[in-house]
Amino acid sequence: MNSDSTAAVIGASGYSGAELVKILSRHPRVKLGPLFANASAGKRMDELYPVLRGRVETTLRPYTAEAACTSDVVFIALPSGEAMNIVPELLKRGKRVVDLGGDFRFQDAQIYQQFYKRQHTATDIIPQAVYGFPEWDADAIRSAKLVSNPGCYPTSAILPLAPLLKEGLISPKGIVVNSLSGVSGAGRSTSIDHSFVEVNESVKAYKVGVHQHSPEIETALGRLSGKSVTVTFVPHLIPITRGIYTTIYANPTAPLTDDIVAAAFKKYYERAPFVRILGPAVPEIKSVAGTNYIDIGWKIYPENGQIIVLATIDNLIKGAAGQAVQSMNLMFGFAETEGLQ
Amino acid sequence: MNSDSTAAVIGASGYSGAELVKILSRHPRVKLGPLFANASAGKRMDELYPVLRGRVETTLRPYTAEAACTSDVVFIALPSGEAMNIVPELLKRGKRVVDLGGDFRFQDAQIYQQFYKRQHTATDIIPQAVYGFPEWDADAIRSAKLVSNPGCYPTSAILPLAPLLKEGLISPKGIVVNSLSGVSGAGRSTSIDHSFVEVNESVKAYKVGVHQHSPEIETALGRLSGKSVTVTFVPHLIPITRGIYTTIYANPTAPLTDDIVAAAFKKYYERAPFVRILGPAVPEIKSVAGTNYIDIGWKIYPENGQIIVLATIDNLIKGAAGQAVQSMNLMFGFAETEGLQ
Amino acid sequence: MNSDSTAAVIGASGYSGAELVKILSRHPRVKLGPLFANASAGKRMDELYPVLRGRVETTLRPYTAEAACTSDVVFIALPSGEAMNIVPELLKRGKRVVDLGGDFRFQDAQIYQQFYKRQHTATDIIPQAVYGFPEWDADAIRSAKLVSNPGCYPTSAILPLAPLLKEGLISPKGIVVNSLSGVSGAGRSTSIDHSFVEVNESVKAYKVGVHQHSPEIETALGRLSGKSVTVTFVPHLIPITRGIYTTIYANPTAPLTDDIVAAAFKKYYERAPFVRILGPAVPEIKSVAGTNYIDIGWKIYPENGQIIVLATIDNLIKGAAGQAVQSMNLMFGFAETEGLQ
Amino acid sequence: MNSDSTAAVIGASGYSGAELVKILSRHPRVKLGPLFANASAGKRMDELYPVLRGRVETTLRPYTAEAACTSDVVFIALPSGEAMNIVPELLKRGKRVVDLGGDFRFQDAQIYQQFYKRQHTATDIIPQAVYGFPEWDADAIRSAKLVSNPGCYPTSAILPLAPLLKEGLISPKGIVVNSLSGVSGAGRSTSIDHSFVEVNESVKAYKVGVHQHSPEIETALGRLSGKSVTVTFVPHLIPITRGIYTTIYANPTAPLTDDIVAAAFKKYYERAPFVRILGPAVPEIKSVAGTNYIDIGWKIYPENGQIIVLATIDNLIKGAAGQAVQSMNLMFGFAETEGLQ
Repeated sequence: MNSDSTAAVIGASGYSGAELVKILSRHPRVKLGPLFANASAGKRMDELYPVLRGRVETTLRPYTAEAACTSDVVFIALPSGEAMNIVPELLKRGKRVVDLGGDFRFQDAQIYQQFYKRQHTATDIIPQAVYGFPEWDADAIRSAKLVSNPGCYPTSAILPLAPLLKEGLISPKGIVVNSLSGVSGAGRSTSIDHSFVEVNESVKAYKVGVHQHSPEIETALGRLSGKSVTVTFVPHLIPITRGIYTTIYANPTAPLTDDIVAAAFKKYYERAPFVRILGPAVPEIKSVAGTNYIDIGWKIYPENGQIIVLATIDNLIKGAAGQAVQSMNLMFGFAETEGLQ
Repeated sequence: MNSDSTAAVIGASGYSGAELVKILSRHPRVKLGPLFANASAGKRMDELYPVLRGRVETTLRPYTAEAACTSDVVFIALPSGEAMNIVPELLKRGKRVVDLGGDFRFQDAQIYQQFYKRQHTATDIIPQAVYGFPEWDADAIRSAKLVSNPGCYPTSAILPLAPLLKEGLISPKGIVVNSLSGVSGAGRSTSIDHSFVEVNESVKAYKVGVHQHSPEIETALGRLSGKSVTVTFVPHLIPITRGIYTTIYANPTAPLTDDIVAAAFKKYYERAPFVRILGPAVPEIKSVAGTNYIDIGWKIYPENGQIIVLATIDNLIKGAAGQAVQSMNLMFGFAETEGLQ
Repeated sequence: MNSDSTAAVIGASGYSGAELVKILSRHPRVKLGPLFANASAGKRMDELYPVLRGRVETTLRPYTAEAACTSDVVFIALPSGEAMNIVPELLKRGKRVVDLGGDFRFQDAQIYQQFYKRQHTATDIIPQAVYGFPEWDADAIRSAKLVSNPGCYPTSAILPLAPLLKEGLISPKGIVVNSLSGVSGAGRSTSIDHSFVEVNESVKAYKVGVHQHSPEIETALGRLSGKSVTVTFVPHLIPITRGIYTTIYANPTAPLTDDIVAAAFKKYYERAPFVRILGPAVPEIKSVAGTNYIDIGWKIYPENGQIIVLATIDNLIKGAAGQAVQSMNLMFGFAETEGLQ
Repeated sequence: MNSDSTAAVIGASGYSGAELVKILSRHPRVKLGPLFANASAGKRMDELYPVLRGRVETTLRPYTAEAACTSDVVFIALPSGEAMNIVPELLKRGKRVVDLGGDFRFQDAQIYQQFYKRQHTATDIIPQAVYGFPEWDADAIRSAKLVSNPGCYPTSAILPLAPLLKEGLISPKGIVVNSLSGVSGAGRSTSIDHSFVEVNESVKAYKVGVHQHSPEIETALGRLSGKSVTVTFVPHLIPITRGIYTTIYANPTAPLTDDIVAAAFKKYYERAPFVRILGPAVPEIKSVAGTNYIDIGWKIYPENGQIIVLATIDNLIKGAAGQAVQSMNLMFGFAETEGLQ
């Protein structure tokens, strides 16, 4: 793939899809290919997102595999449950695919079916899917035909927890993950629950104990740390557009110091261009909004035998489109930061 | 109507309807009667609006004229176009009605049809409708069978302009009305245009030159002042839940002083309990949010031969439910402020 | 104290003080007495808070004990550290006092000094102080000379936890209290940290592990449950004006059911007029904003051996001024709900 | 100035200054030079603005002319009234300067003194100052030693009005400019008026008839159109972080059509890379936030003999730092869009 190579986006009308279009339209090594959005077909991208006026004038079209295959890589930014109907054909035609939805996040289709409440119709493809983080799974991503991009909440929980678990610094049991998300995390929603009046000046937890990102966090942390991990995950909707704030409570296996914690993060993230380790300090959402960074801080709480780890991301970038492009950069041998700064 | 008398609300599930329920549930002279909401029938009011838990446990029901007529007064808080199908039967049964929608705001059905884009199906009822403000039309409201409650934007423009026009202090031509409204003014909307992500951190004008409140403002001011009035009205949607900010630009007919303006407002509003005249000062939305007040200030701009008049209301209270209850208080001989402080 | 009795407010210019003024100005059994605010002395209350125009026209004055003692009860809504200089004189003159700050929340002055970072200068008064909740300490409050009103975060954590601890349903160790607060909780602040641009579209944890409300929660829960309680408390600032959202993670001592939990809450709060038990459901801030209610819900998470308890309050009302008036109602033999509905 | 050339920023700790730093740190032809901020001297830029972590690690220092003169161009982003004490020395040393404040916006020092309420102490420098827009004054900017960058509100009003006035399509009298601004326009303020709680969920007009941007708009439009122009300008503060929404009401000199208006805009802005003409449509803030664009739309209102012109900008970019860099690009012969896309 050279700078004349192209990337297609399926689901370009949604928030993650539009964020992909924004990033790709400025990517120095990629040319925007066809943009698909069935319900908005016929509209121009800059009509739906006027911020793109003068930058992206492509007309959205109904999805066809033929059209998608004119590009070198295909991003899928559809609601979960749709990619599994599309990916098999694309792989058969030899395309490389990055799926931002949930369909290929579990090697075990049973877990998918339990939490996403639907049959998986492409179980034969699952083994080819590489679920992963550029920071942990770079080699697998480089050679992957199908990358399954992690969810937004899981990204904000797994990246801070994985080094501590792998180093054995905290117990894999009894981890609490308390997350706050901006409303764009719900997608381009017309639900009354996401209307301005309902969300503004309020907060509400949701899907307590049944969110599909709970098993994703547990499974990924288990794989990365080699331990059986349980987390209690509670997401909350807060009145901001973008950003996730994740506050993690964990139990150290032995007395910790800031140096020990800092060393663990350094070991795994020293060369990770988008992981900023703040030390024993507190991150905030506005420092990562609009960027592909994850900011991670912590506070050791010796009186109570706990460590609190705090992490922030932009849910549409590091939690979706940015991380997807970061993986694409690996897949095509570009610098990992290309188009993301 | 004594303190055992009852009020029904048709359209209780919407924001104006729910505000009526909140006000009426605390009104010392009124008992809440049946609450109607076809799409939410079967749900409890405090399920839709949990703030009402422990206060209003009524179950919403599908509308029937029979059920409505068990109450002494019927409030209609439906989208415009629906009241005209309901009011004739209620009047025939001798009920007194307060309509918060647009169906009976024009004596001239042609104007209604032009701006509301639909046939008027109850033109024979129109002559009975009293469109009016407690501050200007108290006598007509007292004896009305059908009160047509003014729109939210018109309330914020007509109350400040009427005294100046009636006293001949400003020209009836070339008046500019620039209004900003919180999102609750759009009703309990599932439109993507009113979703949190679309509204937050943005502003957008809408219906420029074609908003149905333009002719309402012109007609009402014409009637109150005895002059032919033209206004240029531009509404804007801003990211707050409640409140309207209206900035009016008008041309004095002769040099003005603050004393002259103050005297005009005093003449008409000295005994109006919900009109607060600030003098040559600037109102703000947060001082009226949650109240039935309209705050009015002004600034004479002699260099440019203009006067700027500024007014703020809570669109759901003085701009809808509060003003409707104020009129009901007149209709039933209660103190005008009953239930509104 | 009859309906001609009066209440003074020291610190009426701050947000809690102004909320007290709003509530007291509508209280049917109380007359507003002198309002004190040294820095704003000479200004009218409705100049600082124009929402009070036409309702409270009192001029703020510099504090003197003489003037305060013309009233029957004195509310103190000052930053912590100031009440201890004022209360001794008021008690000596026989006044009953409700302090909304932190000076008298600990019987152990050492804890105060450690967390509030200053000497306590009125340690001899501490034994007279009744720290308490109307729901748990009604008798002590009724006869108290000095009521120390609980903090906002502690109210949101203690009321949901106390029944579960007292019934022995959860372990007193390892409790996590994750709280989100609107910005009014910081008081009428001119800190850049509370400016609109800094707070908007962001979230930030603060005082992790060192917030003065941590020991308040532990101490109060210890007293109410008779156990030694440890909590890990992390407060976060979120971009809303009012409201606290507290998400609690606790470990059941034995398998729980919703019925067991519901019965525990019913036992202690069945007759508490401002505690709304939602059952196994999720509260939201907008349902309590502007009210004196606390809404409590929960979710049992058997896979992970945890129970999540969620609670919401308006930090300025149930978390400050409302709870203070609720206690005053007890002190003077009024109905507990008087002036608060 | 080649790509090793450097730019200094005086006042780098404020919002406009920080925006300059963000833009310049990514500018392909410029290297960031010294960053000055007296009150924050000694702090690192990424400590004040953590979003810059990993990108700008410069330590802020107290201002000295010597240090500033190590760079090729000096941006001044100080409160108005300070630049006039700094610019003379810089010009004497041969530096080129871009001032984002108000000190050099008027050739007539009397107007400055009337509206900025202070003496002008560098009147001899005023004749060298080039106040201007890249879209109108490119030649003068190219050769300027001192560029005076237009104010944020004036940018949003002058760019849409200038073509219509110059073409004689609208009357230069009786123009109304109604503007809404996000809070960052007030700078990094610790005033209680800009605290979250005061601004959120409210709107307030301010400086009605006395804002220093009124004469700036009139003077600039007079110069560009060759006519004596009067505008009535009312700014309002709204609860968003960034963005200006300007709604302009003007009187056509003869009947207009959309084609006539479109042709006027095309004539002056066809090759302007940051002016997007929407046609007879309505702009919104979120389409320009974070960009250097101005979006301009209009609506002809023949019934009332008016045209409404609407424009949106990001106040910190096109209204401040972006426009300043756009001018610097002209000054140094770079592509006008360099570093701004």
